[in-house]
Amino acid sequence: MDALLKQSRNLCPFLQKTSPATLRALSTSTSRSGGGSAMSNLQIVARRCPIMGKALAVQSARNRPGGMSAYGMGKARLHTSRAKEARAVNDAVGTLFSAEKQATCPHAAKAVAAAATAKVPTATYATVHNPTHFDYEGFYASELDKKHKDKSYRYFNNINRLAKEFPRAHMSSKDERVTVWCSNDYLGMGRNQHVLKTMHRTLDMYGAGAGGTRNISGHNQHALALEATVAKLHAKEAALVFSSCYVANDATLATLGSKLQNCVFLSDSSNHASMIQGIRHSGAKKLVFKHNDVADLEAKLASLPPDVPKIIAFESVYSMCGSIGPIAEICDLADKYGALTFLDEVHAVGMYGPHGAGVAEHLDFEAHKAGRPEGTIMDRVDIITGTLGKAYGCVGGYIAGSARMVDTVRSLAPGFIFTTSLPPATMAGAKTAIEYQMSHPTDRHLQQIHTRSVKAALSALSIPVLPNPSHIVPVLVGNAELAKKASDLLLSEYKIYVQAINYPTVPVGQERLRFTPTPGHTQELQGELVRAVEEVWEKLGIRRTEEFESVGVAVGGEAEPLWSDEQLGLKGAVGVGGMRSGGLVRGEGGLDEKGHHHGHGGGGASRTVDVAA
Amino acid sequence: MDALLKQSRNLCPFLQKTSPATLRALSTSTSRSGGGSAMSNLQIVARRCPIMGKALAVQSARNRPGGMSAYGMGKARLHTSRAKEARAVNDAVGTLFSAEKQATCPHAAKAVAAAATAKVPTATYATVHNPTHFDYEGFYASELDKKHKDKSYRYFNNINRLAKEFPRAHMSSKDERVTVWCSNDYLGMGRNQHVLKTMHRTLDMYGAGAGGTRNISGHNQHALALEATVAKLHAKEAALVFSSCYVANDATLATLGSKLQNCVFLSDSSNHASMIQGIRHSGAKKLVFKHNDVADLEAKLASLPPDVPKIIAFESVYSMCGSIGPIAEICDLADKYGALTFLDEVHAVGMYGPHGAGVAEHLDFEAHKAGRPEGTIMDRVDIITGTLGKAYGCVGGYIAGSARMVDTVRSLAPGFIFTTSLPPATMAGAKTAIEYQMSHPTDRHLQQIHTRSVKAALSALSIPVLPNPSHIVPVLVGNAELAKKASDLLLSEYKIYVQAINYPTVPVGQERLRFTPTPGHTQELQGELVRAVEEVWEKLGIRRTEEFESVGVAVGGEAEPLWSDEQLGLKGAVGVGGMRSGGLVRGEGGLDEKGHHHGHGGGGASRTVDVAA
Repeated sequence: MDALLKQSRNLCPFLQKTSPATLRALSTSTSRSGGGSAMSNLQIVARRCPIMGKALAVQSARNRPGGMSAYGMGKARLHTSRAKEARAVNDAVGTLFSAEKQATCPHAAKAVAAAATAKVPTATYATVHNPTHFDYEGFYASELDKKHKDKSYRYFNNINRLAKEFPRAHMSSKDERVTVWCSNDYLGMGRNQHVLKTMHRTLDMYGAGAGGTRNISGHNQHALALEATVAKLHAKEAALVFSSCYVANDATLATLGSKLQNCVFLSDSSNHASMIQGIRHSGAKKLVFKHNDVADLEAKLASLPPDVPKIIAFESVYSMCGSIGPIAEICDLADKYGALTFLDEVHAVGMYGPHGAGVAEHLDFEAHKAGRPEGTIMDRVDIITGTLGKAYGCVGGYIAGSARMVDTVRSLAPGFIFTTSLPPATMAGAKTAIEYQMSHPTDRHLQQIHTRSVKAALSALSIPVLPNPSHIVPVLVGNAELAKKASDLLLSEYKIYVQAINYPTVPVGQERLRFTPTPGHTQELQGELVRAVEEVWEKLGIRRTEEFESVGVAVGGEAEPLWSDEQLGLKGAVGVGGMRSGGLVRGEGGLDEKGHHHGHGGGGASRTVDVAA
Repeated sequence: MDALLKQSRNLCPFLQKTSPATLRALSTSTSRSGGGSAMSNLQIVARRCPIMGKALAVQSARNRPGGMSAYGMGKARLHTSRAKEARAVNDAVGTLFSAEKQATCPHAAKAVAAAATAKVPTATYATVHNPTHFDYEGFYASELDKKHKDKSYRYFNNINRLAKEFPRAHMSSKDERVTVWCSNDYLGMGRNQHVLKTMHRTLDMYGAGAGGTRNISGHNQHALALEATVAKLHAKEAALVFSSCYVANDATLATLGSKLQNCVFLSDSSNHASMIQGIRHSGAKKLVFKHNDVADLEAKLASLPPDVPKIIAFESVYSMCGSIGPIAEICDLADKYGALTFLDEVHAVGMYGPHGAGVAEHLDFEAHKAGRPEGTIMDRVDIITGTLGKAYGCVGGYIAGSARMVDTVRSLAPGFIFTTSLPPATMAGAKTAIEYQMSHPTDRHLQQIHTRSVKAALSALSIPVLPNPSHIVPVLVGNAELAKKASDLLLSEYKIYVQAINYPTVPVGQERLRFTPTPGHTQELQGELVRAVEEVWEKLGIRRTEEFESVGVAVGGEAEPLWSDEQLGLKGAVGVGGMRSGGLVRGEGGLDEKGHHHGHGGGGASRTVDVAA
């Protein structure tokens, strides 16, 4: 191949004077043209070459049905005023590949002139579409049409979650109440009185917004205190707060992957879109390993040179199926092969561990409870990311890790640098939420107990709950239209809101309902839910557990809850799903939790899926 | 070139069976290795080839000083267990280029097993760094070292803006007051009583956070109402709200550029980082045109085939130099060449136009005042983006445009789909802020009057204000260290906070201070500022206007303010910088604005830069 390149280089003056790096850059950003053929920047340049240009024009005319006229017009213009065109081409090529930077211009003469002449509406504006131009509205229409046809078009439900009636909400009419069964405000911290009090106070004292980026007037005591609290939570040297954890994942992975020369990502196949995008945006190579498959991960790590930087990106709780990542084993592999670990604890922070720091903390429960983080699994993870918008009830995201790593991302990530800081009240509220959960484990205990009980009751009715060790209750439907129908019926007939989860959030054929019990979902609400789901399954003829291949039934003990009976204070309790049957922990904030009974929906013992024993 | 490809294809079984599209994909994502050489996915594959592999190993050993051992190890391992390795390679190649999607796994057996075995801290964890592994902490240290060396390392100031003392803030000590002169809360809406009242009420009723993505329980009446208000503001069919305008720009451009086949971006060279990233993330081609240069833009548009989709991405107010984009002329070119216009009004919304919709609205002031948007420049712009975090005082961003465009982005953009919604209180507060500014122009009038007066006073002292028609007051320093020193001195000695703007926000050599007067920056505060800046310029020996080449002085009338005297209600007024000298508009919200006098800093008339006449 090298010999071939040399040969072609000798034939062409352009190739002779162009470096391999530039050629590579020219050929990198490709996209497909209307006719389905590819056009890279190299091909744009090639269109200017007297030999290649003609060859490409012929090829393009051959490949594009009816596309000749458009390209032909471009070519005709190209050949009528050669000198002028050559200049334009040079400019175009020059700017195409120039380093991107934010140059600024001190003079705005042209702008002002334009503004001055533009103070009356342009009467000559033609609304008629030029047939030789691209039809943008037609493009939108066809994209939307595709979504409608494959049933992935999304209709948002108008859900107004009421702080004083948690977990209830009103619909567009203020009088129409529904119970929310799919919010990620897992612990009801969005209505926690400590959080709200802090936010009201901060709002009055420091106003609605931060007023700038972190560098320009948007850095304040609230950011400092929140980041210190996050660092403390994860027992890391430092932390950095972003607009969201989507932005935290995207910006951090894109920055590290683009700055670490030759970096390779090892990415779990079930990773969240934010990580997929961050890795893609880095431009670095990626190896996808099978979901939670450490053997596959190791094979891929072993295939890479030992000194090449590697980042293993994975999650603790996978939010759509509730599975939990093998954090300890991945840390072992990272040590063995010299990789960085990047752990997304978005669905776990606030929910696991003695202080709510997540699954990594939970795995060394007693060590962290005793304040000894050194050498624990959480200590070994290099970068932990989390959200302030789910169990902590607010909005925003963060990363935590070594001081240098955090400072590097702070200094280099455009997604952090060039955006307005979170409002002071948001940051103060989130800090209060983290601190509250660090010292109040009862909310997450009660959440786990409700999760066990809902899983057990649904499974007892052969409603296909996907067994897992976490707080997520995924119920398989397996069909986009049916999932939406079930969701619609639950809402309209039973006043229960649970969103259908369809593609692209889950793969086609794995459509589901995803229930998220909270401390506020009392026994009464659970009973309503189980009865309603049973009726909807019956009415719509949705498949039961036994009717799915390889889903649920046989998994048994392998989905043992991460929170043990001991950790939940249920020692010695026996019952369906390992629950004690009465006198449960009483939640704070006026939750009415008087006791648990199982089998409100009935269902034979032979159909029981043993999710918790 | 085609012939050469055919030739090499005949030589190699891999090339024979691999499609050109796949080869192109393999060669696209390149990154440089530790030794500076490039490694693409194609090269990873090539390393497996018995011929190319050896050639590459020799080449790599030659190119990388001291890098042989690592690659040597990899190669040795590669050849000891051929069958196993071949399988691993197939897997790796298979997954490397497989379509990315969020597959989910119903079973979590391995995860649970890992969790169960991992419940005690791993005592064997070695903290000793393996010398054959990549040194991540060393990488961070060297990246930070670079920032320190080129003086672009950023130190954030702890600024706590006090709602009741706007525009004052306290530093880390609650007693230490400073005046903030660089916030983007341009109108003080962050402390507006209507906004705060709405937010308090919404917080009490609907809690701290949205609790989910827009699709899953995070869609509510606040989102609907805010988007309807934004659409109304810009007289568009629809609008969509994002976490920030950084995210709005990034997500929208990346989505359109990747979905519109063969799309080419035409991007102003001074565009904000969020647009640069969005365009980069789309993978589409980009032509950068000279800042505000419609001739250059036209040359580049003309070089493209007429039927290829094109997006012209630009801003109305460029925030670091205050220049204003030639919106009307760009709309004309867009019509002529069949391009979409994407206008970022981030620094203009709330600030220009009879309803605060931005510069596009301002250009047809009377038509919009009379409620006749049809055929106006704003009407012609296809996509307008704006922020809720600057003049509107809250946080968040948006796009506005045709219903289909908005629905397409809503349906396809990962940065919108996979993130938690803004909190109800934030959305409600932002809506109130927009509505308030739609009917209360006095804040922006007063802001403009203060801008004129600060520009005139500084210019009169030969402080190098970069002339421009907007509300931005950029003062050139031209040296990173000196800019930081000036900022530090103003803060420590004069209790005036204005952040030094250094690379990468502005190019090296164009470092500056950037003042943002607000309605709250009264004559008294302006006097303090002008005296302090004059003293700091004197103390640090910073260059004056005359000492800079091609900056300022000669521009004169070309920087005429966009807000005319008539629009500001200053008809018939004459004075320094076109100001009337007393009895100015009295701002709402307790602003103490009693009148204006000029020349508080002195300065000879001969040095006056006529920015407003």
